[in-house]
Amino acid sequence: MSLLVVGSVAFDAIQTPYGKVDRILGGAATYFSLAASFFTDVQVVGVVGTDFSEKEEQVFRAHGIDISGIVRENGKSFFWAGEYGENVNEAKTLDTQLGVFAAFNPQIPLQYRKSQYLFLANIDPVLQVNVRKQMNGAKFVGGDTMNFWITGKPEELAEMLKTVDALLINDTEAKMLAKDASLPRAAQKILKLGPKALVIKHGEYGATVFFQDGAFGIGRHPFRAPTLPIEVVTDPTGAGDSFAGGFMGYIASQDKLTREVFKRAMFYGGVMGSFAVEDFGTERLQKLTREEIEERYKTFRELTHID
Amino acid sequence: MSLLVVGSVAFDAIQTPYGKVDRILGGAATYFSLAASFFTDVQVVGVVGTDFSEKEEQVFRAHGIDISGIVRENGKSFFWAGEYGENVNEAKTLDTQLGVFAAFNPQIPLQYRKSQYLFLANIDPVLQVNVRKQMNGAKFVGGDTMNFWITGKPEELAEMLKTVDALLINDTEAKMLAKDASLPRAAQKILKLGPKALVIKHGEYGATVFFQDGAFGIGRHPFRAPTLPIEVVTDPTGAGDSFAGGFMGYIASQDKLTREVFKRAMFYGGVMGSFAVEDFGTERLQKLTREEIEERYKTFRELTHID
Repeated sequence: MSLLVVGSVAFDAIQTPYGKVDRILGGAATYFSLAASFFTDVQVVGVVGTDFSEKEEQVFRAHGIDISGIVRENGKSFFWAGEYGENVNEAKTLDTQLGVFAAFNPQIPLQYRKSQYLFLANIDPVLQVNVRKQMNGAKFVGGDTMNFWITGKPEELAEMLKTVDALLINDTEAKMLAKDASLPRAAQKILKLGPKALVIKHGEYGATVFFQDGAFGIGRHPFRAPTLPIEVVTDPTGAGDSFAGGFMGYIASQDKLTREVFKRAMFYGGVMGSFAVEDFGTERLQKLTREEIEERYKTFRELTHID
Repeated sequence: MSLLVVGSVAFDAIQTPYGKVDRILGGAATYFSLAASFFTDVQVVGVVGTDFSEKEEQVFRAHGIDISGIVRENGKSFFWAGEYGENVNEAKTLDTQLGVFAAFNPQIPLQYRKSQYLFLANIDPVLQVNVRKQMNGAKFVGGDTMNFWITGKPEELAEMLKTVDALLINDTEAKMLAKDASLPRAAQKILKLGPKALVIKHGEYGATVFFQDGAFGIGRHPFRAPTLPIEVVTDPTGAGDSFAGGFMGYIASQDKLTREVFKRAMFYGGVMGSFAVEDFGTERLQKLTREEIEERYKTFRELTHID
């Protein structure tokens, strides 16, 4: 089944202990759609400036991603510059230029509205709710958010949380959202705010999915997926969005919400995140093959399964 | 096969967000031996003062633990007072009184010297090396250490690392020991210092075992075990020692060093650590049954296994 993502398409400047790039294709919807494209048909709604060229379009098209929902406006694309130190879990933002993204007000093209699977990447929760309303026939909706909205637009975010089936955030965001220093307790509090499933990403330690009691008819027991212990994390940018792409892409490909599907989706999420960090920007995802994905999936199994 | 542990037997005063105890049985060798006693015969070498009474002895004896190697000296037992805040991973030490432990110079009783499995709990690496020499027939030796020895006695610790088959430490200790902020890289560096297996405990995220290439004939692929997402961590004291007890106890019970045994040992380590934190001191371990252990082992499997 086709999967629609709404979010940022951008250019990034990134510096890590392993190198530096001045201008590379980025943005949550970019990482997400590339990762998801290995599993299902993907459509993107976003906005770019006149600096978004045929070269960038080709990255999406080479993976069969439908970008007819990416609007081109006069001005510059969203630009982010960041730096990572020894701690790859923390990015230091050096520059943010919203450009045409500042006025982003996503309108879902009619031909996308029948999509059953939707991912609301990290944008203003007001826009996320607006998109959700346009996609009111969706069967399964995932969403992301960040500290900026948790502290800056708590009421709007509360509305958004009521409209998603799965929320995908990281440890820090979960603790901040629930105002609780205990992650398992924070998870239970967040589930009471709306999402039937809550995926908390632990960076290098993997991710855990928690469920509302009885959600999807699959019981409340959580499930943990690993990541690889990777010695060289070339560029952590986009790892979380790639996780979300693998997770949502796999679920959309199976078109059923069983516990087995969620488990495998968690593994595929981890697999896609682990590939994303191996090179700058989306370089690794661009070159990836489905065979490599399956091979790493097996490695993840061997890393965690007793027999 | 019988398992010998050498380490501290102590009294603790502990304060956590869930309560307070003024004087409770503690010490690394205590947690370790209780946890290991569910899997194999355990012997303890340690030192206590005249305040160590029949009541404390009974805790060990009730679990069939051989404490004829615990020497009683004139003076007070080792005493530690600590406090945990919202972050259960960090203890604040309020008081340390070494007492008779200050002059601890472990001599292994002759009847213990034929033990094939040995655990060097966290004590001065000079003493650890000395014990290792007395136990030179041991088949598999595990060891622990801490920041105090990593920074204070690096050369002595380097000697100790050459004499253990498995080192069990936490994330912070591993990064400090290897002088590397990347955990997977730190792991590879530490394996070059001696241990054939390195178990890094990630607190609430579980633990990973790394192997030297070709160690035990089982290949170098790491293995990750989870912990439960526990909403109420009543008292984190002893979680790491209980992990070590479950890990070493299970290996000793199987008396073979296969990849399957290591995997299960990692799970049993996680299981014992997850029980230890449910109540103050060793209270939960004291009341535990093997049936509860097997039940939680199954829960750990369900938490991580796809099918």
